[in-house]
Amino acid sequence: MINWSGSNKKVKISFLLTGNEILGGDITDTNSVYLAKKLAAIGMEVQQKLVVGDHLQSIVQALIRLAEESQIIIINGGLGSTVDDLTSEAVSLVSGRKLTEHSQAVKHIENRFGKKFLAENPGFYKQIKKQAMLPAGVEILDNPVGIAVGYKLRIKKAICYFTPGVPHELYAMVSESILPDIQQRFSVLPALSISRFHLMGIGESHVQELIKKHIPVSVWNDVHLGFRANSPYVELKLAVQDSKALPTLETAEMKVQEILSSYIFSRESLLPETLIGLLLERKKHLVLAESCTGGLICSQITAVAGASRVFEAGYVTYSNRSKTDLLKVSAELIDRFGAVSREVVLEMVKGALNASGADCGIAVTGIAGPSGGSEEKPVGEVYIGWGGRKGVGCRKLLVKRERAAFQHLVGITALDLLRRHLLHLPTDIPYFFDEETRQHFLGKVASGGTG
Amino acid sequence: MINWSGSNKKVKISFLLTGNEILGGDITDTNSVYLAKKLAAIGMEVQQKLVVGDHLQSIVQALIRLAEESQIIIINGGLGSTVDDLTSEAVSLVSGRKLTEHSQAVKHIENRFGKKFLAENPGFYKQIKKQAMLPAGVEILDNPVGIAVGYKLRIKKAICYFTPGVPHELYAMVSESILPDIQQRFSVLPALSISRFHLMGIGESHVQELIKKHIPVSVWNDVHLGFRANSPYVELKLAVQDSKALPTLETAEMKVQEILSSYIFSRESLLPETLIGLLLERKKHLVLAESCTGGLICSQITAVAGASRVFEAGYVTYSNRSKTDLLKVSAELIDRFGAVSREVVLEMVKGALNASGADCGIAVTGIAGPSGGSEEKPVGEVYIGWGGRKGVGCRKLLVKRERAAFQHLVGITALDLLRRHLLHLPTDIPYFFDEETRQHFLGKVASGGTG
Repeated sequence: MINWSGSNKKVKISFLLTGNEILGGDITDTNSVYLAKKLAAIGMEVQQKLVVGDHLQSIVQALIRLAEESQIIIINGGLGSTVDDLTSEAVSLVSGRKLTEHSQAVKHIENRFGKKFLAENPGFYKQIKKQAMLPAGVEILDNPVGIAVGYKLRIKKAICYFTPGVPHELYAMVSESILPDIQQRFSVLPALSISRFHLMGIGESHVQELIKKHIPVSVWNDVHLGFRANSPYVELKLAVQDSKALPTLETAEMKVQEILSSYIFSRESLLPETLIGLLLERKKHLVLAESCTGGLICSQITAVAGASRVFEAGYVTYSNRSKTDLLKVSAELIDRFGAVSREVVLEMVKGALNASGADCGIAVTGIAGPSGGSEEKPVGEVYIGWGGRKGVGCRKLLVKRERAAFQHLVGITALDLLRRHLLHLPTDIPYFFDEETRQHFLGKVASGGTG
Repeated sequence: MINWSGSNKKVKISFLLTGNEILGGDITDTNSVYLAKKLAAIGMEVQQKLVVGDHLQSIVQALIRLAEESQIIIINGGLGSTVDDLTSEAVSLVSGRKLTEHSQAVKHIENRFGKKFLAENPGFYKQIKKQAMLPAGVEILDNPVGIAVGYKLRIKKAICYFTPGVPHELYAMVSESILPDIQQRFSVLPALSISRFHLMGIGESHVQELIKKHIPVSVWNDVHLGFRANSPYVELKLAVQDSKALPTLETAEMKVQEILSSYIFSRESLLPETLIGLLLERKKHLVLAESCTGGLICSQITAVAGASRVFEAGYVTYSNRSKTDLLKVSAELIDRFGAVSREVVLEMVKGALNASGADCGIAVTGIAGPSGGSEEKPVGEVYIGWGGRKGVGCRKLLVKRERAAFQHLVGITALDLLRRHLLHLPTDIPYFFDEETRQHFLGKVASGGTG
């Protein structure tokens, strides 16, 4: 039996997030993603995350419940000065500590705005001072980049860290106060050794099947195998907590590398970073020509700090006219084969290379939907082209996902195809989200072919 | 006292999400955002959201606890066929229903893959069939787009809907089975009338201060005022639940419109849609020239279906050479003033207009960081240009946020500035995230100026 969890005795950590806007889906919660990653980096794992709205009763109930189940609670949000900031009131009810003006918090506000400004704006001062009304006797956590301070106190057996909801304020408080405090209090050893593999182009169950088939079960007595999907990536994690198991870890690593090599693109980084690294190594400069992905691939690349060392330029040629004007794709060719075609995508790659002077390019043209499809060229049909001065290649895919997911999947796949091209790996692998490959594969097997 | 919550007696709804990858921050949870929005559309509000890892005990505890507190629980994830899919096992433990092969679920698998294919691939069939092992007697929820069916059963007083974690499978199941079922069971009336306002360029506390100052408190006896931050937007919601209050709602609407008019950009849509609508009305075509935002603005625009009607082309001119080659910004100008300068951004707008033939443009150049800044031009400094055939304008901002947040804020602000330009509104408003405006404002007030 494979031990998939890889967990042993752990400190019990809970997150409590407050805010109607998170609960209601108006904003996507990135704070707890940040927290989980920072904790993982010191070898700790969060046990549960609870989100409640801006209602006093909900926050009180959540605090009582989590304090019974956790050793650490990180509470995020509700420390501001508007009427829906209720966290301190809830803490007061749960802990029996009265809300009192905390001199250190008042000082923090005065330092940020200046006493003169506050004296001249008494209405503002009164409003903002609400943030200094804290449960009596709490220990302040400094906020070096914002107005609301955080604080720390024990509720039952749980150490509670109260943090502001504004992301960059949270980040500063976590790295400067909370993580050092946790590390000091709980001297948890991280896993002795962890190996990671990032895969692209293969589905979860297929990975699991290959591992079961090719690696002896006994290996997993000593090595913990973790498995994560982060579409379109899959991540594998091998961990050991005893130095005696290190040789088995090495065996497992080699085996995984062997059976999954064509899908593993890196050990640590995701595809944009991996591709940028590859281009740097080869001293190549990249140009992108995007139609249906509308700039998302440029954005995926330039989200990486330092992308400027390899990224030359991008053309977002959404209209047919711009394909002709910017990339010199002949209008006659577009007329004859359609803007979404093998012929046009190849000309887009060549045109982008010529116009920019870059030596490595990707082009994409397709139908992102929801409208714009036809029987002949359905929504989801997309051509991805790649290449350099020595030649260009392209591939057709059918990605039946809604618009945003389509753009994301196509973008990452385009980066993978260029990576494969640069490494002379096959570019015709059956991407698991390509509806046409899937149908074709099933059809072949069903009709008795051997594929 | 203003009633900020706008809530009255409500059906108690909880979400339970399972998965190490969500808890650990490897993927950002978009499923519950989707669910919350769909429920909001039928006038329902989620009370809490709980995320636990792939551990049997955690899922069991969560189900027991939520079943005590909820009337509806929507459970997402853990229905697949890998060893970390544990939801049905947990349900079996909590409900006392044995796991048995559900004939309807087996049939679903057979229909998706074909009996012949499954017979020829017995290993695969065995693996995938795990998804048909469900707690005895549950009611199946069809999955029209994937392999794992969902199901429904009552635990204590809670109706539980079990759904797959793959987003597009969840979406189909929610709209085809779950929402209709909920609407039938709980005939909750949505708020009689809701008005929304989307604002840009102003912070939360400032909005609240203006409302307190200018609108009589009595209005809020009948009208519920909701308030959400979705950086860099702020959303206001006015709701009444009694037709007698409709005249007061109208008064409140007019007042809000009056005191916040320069910040309100739409009633329903966000900025990219709003700008696209404006360009459509004016029959204008847009071109974008991006340096530090690296394609994100193109992507924000083309994420909207139908963007092709107004979006002509985008240039992602990351290198100096590409600014010269693609946009004809003179190399001498770049040398003299630097790529991040007022002079260059204005030439970028003009160059993009000329090269593309579009009649309306935005350009951006700045220092996204984390490196690349200097004392003279710090990280966060950015120039945004806009304009058309009749003239161009630009503005300098200092946005001190980490790379991703910087790019996002700058992108949305650029769209807002073009919107303001098209509507002949002032483009020099003090954006609340602009560090320089903020310092300047504080300095002025502190030194006794009147601003």
